[in-house]
Amino acid sequence: MTNEQWLELFKGIGRKMRDGLSVILAREGGMVPLGKGAGGDKTFPVDKWAEDIILAALEKARWQGESFTLISEELGIRKFGEGKKIVLVDPIDGSNNAKSGIPFFSTSLALLNDETLSTLAVGYVINLAMGDEFWAVRAQGAYKNGKRIRTAATQGITIVAYEASSPRTDLPRIMPLLGEAQRTRCFGSTALDLSYLASGAISVFAAATASRAFDYAAGMLILEEADGVITDFEGTSLDHLVAGLGRTVPLLASKNDATHARALNILTSRPR
Amino acid sequence: MTNEQWLELFKGIGRKMRDGLSVILAREGGMVPLGKGAGGDKTFPVDKWAEDIILAALEKARWQGESFTLISEELGIRKFGEGKKIVLVDPIDGSNNAKSGIPFFSTSLALLNDETLSTLAVGYVINLAMGDEFWAVRAQGAYKNGKRIRTAATQGITIVAYEASSPRTDLPRIMPLLGEAQRTRCFGSTALDLSYLASGAISVFAAATASRAFDYAAGMLILEEADGVITDFEGTSLDHLVAGLGRTVPLLASKNDATHARALNILTSRPR
Repeated sequence: MTNEQWLELFKGIGRKMRDGLSVILAREGGMVPLGKGAGGDKTFPVDKWAEDIILAALEKARWQGESFTLISEELGIRKFGEGKKIVLVDPIDGSNNAKSGIPFFSTSLALLNDETLSTLAVGYVINLAMGDEFWAVRAQGAYKNGKRIRTAATQGITIVAYEASSPRTDLPRIMPLLGEAQRTRCFGSTALDLSYLASGAISVFAAATASRAFDYAAGMLILEEADGVITDFEGTSLDHLVAGLGRTVPLLASKNDATHARALNILTSRPR
Repeated sequence: MTNEQWLELFKGIGRKMRDGLSVILAREGGMVPLGKGAGGDKTFPVDKWAEDIILAALEKARWQGESFTLISEELGIRKFGEGKKIVLVDPIDGSNNAKSGIPFFSTSLALLNDETLSTLAVGYVINLAMGDEFWAVRAQGAYKNGKRIRTAATQGITIVAYEASSPRTDLPRIMPLLGEAQRTRCFGSTALDLSYLASGAISVFAAATASRAFDYAAGMLILEEADGVITDFEGTSLDHLVAGLGRTVPLLASKNDATHARALNILTSRPR
């Protein structure tokens, strides 16, 4: 399969998730019934339902001769043949929002040609609450709903978005950066933070807690293809990181090089 | 007009805004073209368009014999007769999100029988990006998309949401509260923060910057009718506040009395 065919497969998964969830959300009052086995008759296990959609699509790719390994938040690691390619999946990124009825969560899908993030080839993110789609194929630019997107070329720090799994320890770490912002945002979905940054809406994004590759790989390629920059908090490229289930590093992402340099300087030069 | 008739009028405004914006958002790549006169041929002045929808609906109410004063972020103060009733309108709450393409912004409409917030009679909030509607009529409960909602009865502080117009000075003020949260959120629309708190998704909401009545009045009634609590940062009721264009006080809102007492204690007992 070509990268473009993988992108079509990812879009198929995303749109099935979105269409099915619209029905579920209407029935459940906006809340996504997550949690395996937690439901009685009244709840519907969305995790299992999402798994089925993803596995059916990947099995189709396998039948077409593709050979790859799936790494997913829900499904863990599963081999579809012995090939080197890796498919990274987060069925619902922003599950705290989804299960409480806050309409900001996504599905994130990425294809790597090998185990390191330097081999990212395709990234796809869909806002499941309202349908915005973001995607990128390596060296072919980034798109939102079919239109080419680029980060903002300006240098001011207007909106700084962040994620923090442990506010008490994470927020003091990034406070100097938040203090430089005209506005802060914390939406609860790293894949969407990176995607809206790629589309020019956000100046800088910091994931203060070490993140997992399936949360950010798709958004990372979308951002880079939109002329954005992403590193760890020390300014080191993420390209050498190996995709897996574990947490890797905190992330700092910016709309352009000049802004990134300034954000790194703010994060590293002040007393914590 | 009865309160129920005012609610229907508000729903009419909200749904016209939502339907029209869907078309505009599709055309403009998700961004709301705000800013009077800022656009050339390519931009569409949504402010003016929203004004027209609101004024047409209110003029209809005036023809039906209603007498009231409009207080709006966009339109300022306009008298529709000499009556004591006040209609508070924020056509687009979350305009920073709207104009940059982040799908989290709302229209907020409230009816007061007199000038103080103690006379709040009807509140209506619509999430313009994906359609969730929240409303309340005094003493008749709060609703989301037609279903009765209540805040969470639990006492843990899971999600703390906040708004801060000046992160550098506002965030240190509320940091002790953010540090108690399992997760923080900052969405950029006070009307939606209060509405999602009312529906059980958020434990505590703090608007660290002094807020304006048209931003929070509708959400305040929806929250109170959903068994939530809202005061200023000192725990003082907002009932005595007079609706106007100016900023009033910072807001602290919680899912229930026990949680509110705890949040107040955290905000006031620690060194700033």
